[in-house]
Amino acid sequence: MRVFIAGMDGYLGWSLALYMTQRGHEVGGTDSYFRRNWVAEMGSQSATPICRMTERLQAFRENFGANLKYVRGDMTDYNFVLNFFRSFQPDAVIHLAEMPSAPYSMVDVHHANFTHTNNLLGTLNILHAMRDACPEAHLVKLGTMGEYGTPQIDIPEGFFEIEYRGRKDRLPFPRQAGSWYHQTKVHDSNNIMMACRIWGLRSTDIMQGVVFGTRIREMGEDERLLSRFDFDQCFGTAINRYCAQAAVGMPLTPYGKGNQLRGFLPLRDSMQCLGLITENPPPLGEYRVVNQFEEVYNLTELAFKVQRVGARLGLNVVVRHVENPRFEMEEHYYNPEHQILLDLGYEPTHDIEAEIEIALRDLLRYRSRVEARAHALTPDIRWDGTRREVNYLDEVSWMVPLAVGAGR
Amino acid sequence: MRVFIAGMDGYLGWSLALYMTQRGHEVGGTDSYFRRNWVAEMGSQSATPICRMTERLQAFRENFGANLKYVRGDMTDYNFVLNFFRSFQPDAVIHLAEMPSAPYSMVDVHHANFTHTNNLLGTLNILHAMRDACPEAHLVKLGTMGEYGTPQIDIPEGFFEIEYRGRKDRLPFPRQAGSWYHQTKVHDSNNIMMACRIWGLRSTDIMQGVVFGTRIREMGEDERLLSRFDFDQCFGTAINRYCAQAAVGMPLTPYGKGNQLRGFLPLRDSMQCLGLITENPPPLGEYRVVNQFEEVYNLTELAFKVQRVGARLGLNVVVRHVENPRFEMEEHYYNPEHQILLDLGYEPTHDIEAEIEIALRDLLRYRSRVEARAHALTPDIRWDGTRREVNYLDEVSWMVPLAVGAGR
Repeated sequence: MRVFIAGMDGYLGWSLALYMTQRGHEVGGTDSYFRRNWVAEMGSQSATPICRMTERLQAFRENFGANLKYVRGDMTDYNFVLNFFRSFQPDAVIHLAEMPSAPYSMVDVHHANFTHTNNLLGTLNILHAMRDACPEAHLVKLGTMGEYGTPQIDIPEGFFEIEYRGRKDRLPFPRQAGSWYHQTKVHDSNNIMMACRIWGLRSTDIMQGVVFGTRIREMGEDERLLSRFDFDQCFGTAINRYCAQAAVGMPLTPYGKGNQLRGFLPLRDSMQCLGLITENPPPLGEYRVVNQFEEVYNLTELAFKVQRVGARLGLNVVVRHVENPRFEMEEHYYNPEHQILLDLGYEPTHDIEAEIEIALRDLLRYRSRVEARAHALTPDIRWDGTRREVNYLDEVSWMVPLAVGAGR
Repeated sequence: MRVFIAGMDGYLGWSLALYMTQRGHEVGGTDSYFRRNWVAEMGSQSATPICRMTERLQAFRENFGANLKYVRGDMTDYNFVLNFFRSFQPDAVIHLAEMPSAPYSMVDVHHANFTHTNNLLGTLNILHAMRDACPEAHLVKLGTMGEYGTPQIDIPEGFFEIEYRGRKDRLPFPRQAGSWYHQTKVHDSNNIMMACRIWGLRSTDIMQGVVFGTRIREMGEDERLLSRFDFDQCFGTAINRYCAQAAVGMPLTPYGKGNQLRGFLPLRDSMQCLGLITENPPPLGEYRVVNQFEEVYNLTELAFKVQRVGARLGLNVVVRHVENPRFEMEEHYYNPEHQILLDLGYEPTHDIEAEIEIALRDLLRYRSRVEARAHALTPDIRWDGTRREVNYLDEVSWMVPLAVGAGR
């Protein structure tokens, strides 16, 4: 298949270019390098020493004996998107080119507005360009489990059949996102659903859980093939941030009570799922939603897992809860379905501690890069619009589990 | 109350400035005159001879003995919005400043993108500026009944209690909009709901039906106080377009089978509802949704109503169905609830034919202005992205009701 990847310089995008090539696909793609700038804006850098795209492409050539059809460009530029699709004629368009951070979108009105224009216009351009250049291609769109929020009922995969006042219908499951970033993903979902209905496009909209880990098999031993790994308050996600904290001897910091539940999956599982989805497109006109994660975990439990793995590597890891800079439920019901990917053949890794160990070993190797930007680990972007560093919540009940955890 | 109106030069905005002043409120507002440009882009003009804002403000002064606090500006300019709110300190922010046309948003990718940035950034700016300048003000936001689409079940007002797999929750009712314009209203609704939840703002999100009519009592006999009245394929809504067609002797043209059902309300009812909502704000932190329309009508029935009223005025009005340029269900279940406004004291006009007669008499007076732009009445913007004028559907069954209608 000819696979187009928007956002090829990113955490998932670069890994996926390697993964899909290894599976025999012809891969093209683009990036605007915005992610590198956003992370710099946060005073941070990738923990892994990623090289420039020209060097990445060279390393790719040397390792895979093939070229990536890569062109630098911005998905919010319609003519760029249309011309790329016209010449590349993709069978699948994998859209990973959005601004992916909740806190970054909450900095101020300008960041909120930028997140909206960047994410929505990129997706609108893709939909229009697919309609006009490759209407049979399959749009594989990265959404987030965060689109659903935390309702008091089970979360199906995108749609549910309900009875209301004596009549039945199959309807989109209501979304209740908790940040401007998450909202843009909801808006995209609504837009893509409509484009499938009125233009007969096909799409899989992926409600992905939180991805973690430093590597996939296809990166081998060539450091130049490593993907980026962010740990700052905006672009570092929970487990990755914990691993970076453990590597530099900082406490792991669950937000608030830390009983928030979220779906997680290792980077290698994300690649496996994206591959399966791409290779198994829905029929034309179908808007398919999949919930993509390996398992649901509690954010504090995860910190203890990192602590345990750290202890095995000789690290003395402390868990300390901090004020929650976000506005979110810290205790809630959470039961999302995730069957479609299993039906497509997804084999979950299920050994989260082994993944954490690989990541921790990598991060210990690059410890100085994290140390140099360690201040970026402490959140100060709050959902109320202020910017004040969070404080430790020393007085609360976590002291008991911490003591237990620390002793392991 | 101090009432801020975004979009004060528009069809609803100008009428509302008069109406709210008459009710004793201090009215401020803004406009960017985009609507005048969009209608010109469609090769059309307002049927009513609206004057420039400076003349409007002069006429307002002469008739009401007061000044409107009006400043020209663009709601997508954050500093403009913030500074206006800081100096005016509104009790209510009535947001009517969005691009309001489904066909205009469907012209091409650039119109789709413009609709998204104009509508979403305007609303995001308002939410942030309210948070920072007037957090207790009430956001009265104009949405549309079109956000819901046409589900197979009853449509409640914004939220519904459901049971799913043995658990219950109160959730936002799923939206299934049918154009980019309608989608932007859905996106706004999601964004406003979140801002109320995380920032404690209060808002009423109005799912309004299709408004029609040329005047409200407050315009009196001063022609300079008339609001705009559009009849082109983009900015003219169903009944208004029918009235313009009847006035210039063109056939009334329901789209497709014409059995689409929609909620409608006269301009005077829209003003009454907006006034009631503004004067009865929800508590801080509440996101309230109201469905605002007088009654549900079938689009072909409405054409026959206009035909009947036209006959009373001596007009020979023909109804001819045309190809449907939109992608929509032409036969469907439709049962939206609309109780909240009635509970607030809304007294529906219920005499739609009297309203149509007033509009027709006004339009006959301005017939030459419609005749000069009559070509703008024939749609060519299609939901499939092409632009070809629709054809009459002469062969279908409407011939029988037409004959009946024409004989009345």
